[in-house]
Amino acid sequence: MVQYPQIDRAFAALADPTRRGLLERLGRGTATITELADPVGISLTGMKKHVRVLEEAGLVTTEKVGRARQVSLGPRRLDDLQEWIDMYRQMLDERLDRFGELLERTQQGDQQ
Amino acid sequence: MVQYPQIDRAFAALADPTRRGLLERLGRGTATITELADPVGISLTGMKKHVRVLEEAGLVTTEKVGRARQVSLGPRRLDDLQEWIDMYRQMLDERLDRFGELLERTQQGDQQ
Repeated sequence: MVQYPQIDRAFAALADPTRRGLLERLGRGTATITELADPVGISLTGMKKHVRVLEEAGLVTTEKVGRARQVSLGPRRLDDLQEWIDMYRQMLDERLDRFGELLERTQQGDQQ
Repeated sequence: MVQYPQIDRAFAALADPTRRGLLERLGRGTATITELADPVGISLTGMKKHVRVLEEAGLVTTEKVGRARQVSLGPRRLDDLQEWIDMYRQMLDERLDRFGELLERTQQGDQQ
């Protein structure tokens, strides 16, 4: 089986509402770990862990500025996640179409 | 913070290539746990765990047929994941636009 570590990491990183909230916050601008941690009531250690998970998935970048660590939104556009979800939804559509055809044939059979 | 357990479960379920592979397999038709486990060389116990994760995320449904458990693709269309990803990508676009404008203003400043 082909492994996609980066797509795995992105899906896993997005599986947590705190981390999705962080990305939404960073969409409004760069912030330090402290500025991210304070409003959501998470310890600095906890916030660093969340930021690391997002960074490993390419979703944020961090930069040391003086004594603080600045976090900003990464360049990752989630194209691979999008591609997989598109494929999956198309598969569901095709299944629904086949089910519709089957239903139609069954009803025609009843009328004969 | 608002919790979205179902969207969390779906993202987490998709973070594993074996589970994404199972969904692709089930797109070609219903299968028993044994039929899913054999070709990928996973134990029945391991496969049951993967199927449970997918079932809890609403991605598959299972049905006991005789002594076997039939697994089929669930009705879940990932609309909430799609909505979140769309919002995120739009945010990236807006940031890129703002960066472009800034660059343009900087260049105009240089020419004056």
